[in-house]
Amino acid sequence: MTVIALDVMSGDLGAQECVPAALCALQDDPLLELKLVGQPEIIDALLSAAAPAGALRRRLQVVPASEIILMTDAPREAIRRKKDSSMRVAIDLVREARADAVVSAGNTGALTAIAHFVLKCLAEVERAPIMSAVPNAAGYTHILDLGANVRATAHQLEQFAIMGAIVARDVHDTQRPRVGLLNIGAEESKGHDLVQEAHVLLRAWADSHRHRDFEYVGFVEGGDIFTGKVDVVVTDGFTGNVALKTMEGVAGLISGRLRSEFTANWTSKLAAILSRPVLKRVSGSLDPRRYNGAVMVGLRKVVVKSHGNADRVALARAIAIAATAVRRELVTHVQQALEADAPAAP
Amino acid sequence: MTVIALDVMSGDLGAQECVPAALCALQDDPLLELKLVGQPEIIDALLSAAAPAGALRRRLQVVPASEIILMTDAPREAIRRKKDSSMRVAIDLVREARADAVVSAGNTGALTAIAHFVLKCLAEVERAPIMSAVPNAAGYTHILDLGANVRATAHQLEQFAIMGAIVARDVHDTQRPRVGLLNIGAEESKGHDLVQEAHVLLRAWADSHRHRDFEYVGFVEGGDIFTGKVDVVVTDGFTGNVALKTMEGVAGLISGRLRSEFTANWTSKLAAILSRPVLKRVSGSLDPRRYNGAVMVGLRKVVVKSHGNADRVALARAIAIAATAVRRELVTHVQQALEADAPAAP
Repeated sequence: MTVIALDVMSGDLGAQECVPAALCALQDDPLLELKLVGQPEIIDALLSAAAPAGALRRRLQVVPASEIILMTDAPREAIRRKKDSSMRVAIDLVREARADAVVSAGNTGALTAIAHFVLKCLAEVERAPIMSAVPNAAGYTHILDLGANVRATAHQLEQFAIMGAIVARDVHDTQRPRVGLLNIGAEESKGHDLVQEAHVLLRAWADSHRHRDFEYVGFVEGGDIFTGKVDVVVTDGFTGNVALKTMEGVAGLISGRLRSEFTANWTSKLAAILSRPVLKRVSGSLDPRRYNGAVMVGLRKVVVKSHGNADRVALARAIAIAATAVRRELVTHVQQALEADAPAAP
Repeated sequence: MTVIALDVMSGDLGAQECVPAALCALQDDPLLELKLVGQPEIIDALLSAAAPAGALRRRLQVVPASEIILMTDAPREAIRRKKDSSMRVAIDLVREARADAVVSAGNTGALTAIAHFVLKCLAEVERAPIMSAVPNAAGYTHILDLGANVRATAHQLEQFAIMGAIVARDVHDTQRPRVGLLNIGAEESKGHDLVQEAHVLLRAWADSHRHRDFEYVGFVEGGDIFTGKVDVVVTDGFTGNVALKTMEGVAGLISGRLRSEFTANWTSKLAAILSRPVLKRVSGSLDPRRYNGAVMVGLRKVVVKSHGNADRVALARAIAIAATAVRRELVTHVQQALEADAPAAP
């Protein structure tokens, strides 16, 4: 059995979506057990309303937590003051080995801070980045860091690359992932000292033959995230977060324009009706719910961050990612790879 | 008369598009004079083929330059070795006051380096950023720096904000531009030390009442580039370049998906025919050609960078932007604003 602690109260939609997501995930995965962490009266009411089958209900346990960390709470305050919050209690369950992994849709800053504080990084890891998938022309590109660390040294970027390749392989079944370092041009001379240094480290890493399972392709540009040229794109949390939100912003702009133009007059409305299956397929293929579940990699345990506004479908996907990460022994593989890499590090 | 030196040979499409663009620009603007810089035999052949009216032809002069700076040329080598290149000769014309501004679709790194080397920054300016417009839900957002400087100090970001607001006002007619600083969250506590410092400088700048014409709205996120929340987004050249290319990449991914889904079967092909006007309006409203022409601001003269693959329509737009910048006395206004700001600077 894989046991996952689910922070039920956090996220924009809270227990309303988390409880149905939990039932969905249990239905999909007979080897899964869930601990729903939050206010019991709310969870129980939602469970009674959903009335799951007994066999399902037995793989589900409610763990009480009285507080909720809000999206506006500062990470430090969240650590210090909200020790009985659903996020903290869920993470504590993992530390106490009462759960194998934690999934939360809550405040990213607080989750990053509490996960680092309670679960700690692996010995070799300096910072744990957040990694998620975004659609590309051929499938998915995994990007890290998406905002856990606003700065990264060259050595940290090298570690992000190694960890990112392992997540792509172990969790997302990408054989021999191609890893690229985000820069403002593909030419060797481009970029600042930090990406230049990281590039040298990654070249050495690629040449060392210790990581035959991954390929380092060098510098990539923002546009390459979407072409399928690479499987993993490595950058610092500031740049990664800007890229992710830019991506979401452009997609929103284009879909807004399509919506307003398709409803502009009666001929365009007719065209919209006929185009509905096409538009549905396109938006479905780019649907962020399909790739929800960002892994915080480099910690001693598996932590998965769900999008704040994730609905039940998206949340169930994040739970499945956490379960896969546990079963494929992600943490052990990351540790082994970084231990093997340690002598080469500065 | 406004005289613009046009680097005819650079860019992916070269003289083939530059010469028709020049004729277009002259047609649109009777107070414009152009100096076409490049290989005379090529330019003359294209001019003969186009056979412009005599009145138009008289506002056009060919200035010979034997070399071409390639997209692959390193900036330093371009400065040192290609002194008779079309880009260099065009910039020299501006330095010698034989032209008021220069427009080039060539190698960004080389253009940045040669423009800085030959024309120099204004006394108060440390680095000249590149600024361009991208579409948002309501009109356009201007972003800088898009890649002229891979790093920027807090003081440089402050200068980018001031210069960006002036370009938005003087060249793009945005009254009282709202300026935002790109970060990974809108909350005051977010981001690294550098954006935090720049934020303090910009708050002070906004409070100083010396720049009543602009408004500083604080931190914005990647998604805010497209909502119309601000008119100017300020960031360093690394982040700005990644955001720009990410934006282009996503737009390409979505239009690729639409194309393939609209041609998937006969019903979708029928829907495509009916949707053609809608899709044309959407892609037209997002057409990068409509906002071509990035101003390199902070130099002693007006320099406008066109997209490398710009066609005649896009190039004519870049020429028009350069002419507007000259007529609105952009350089003088930038100088005055930074002189006024100088005492407050660290």
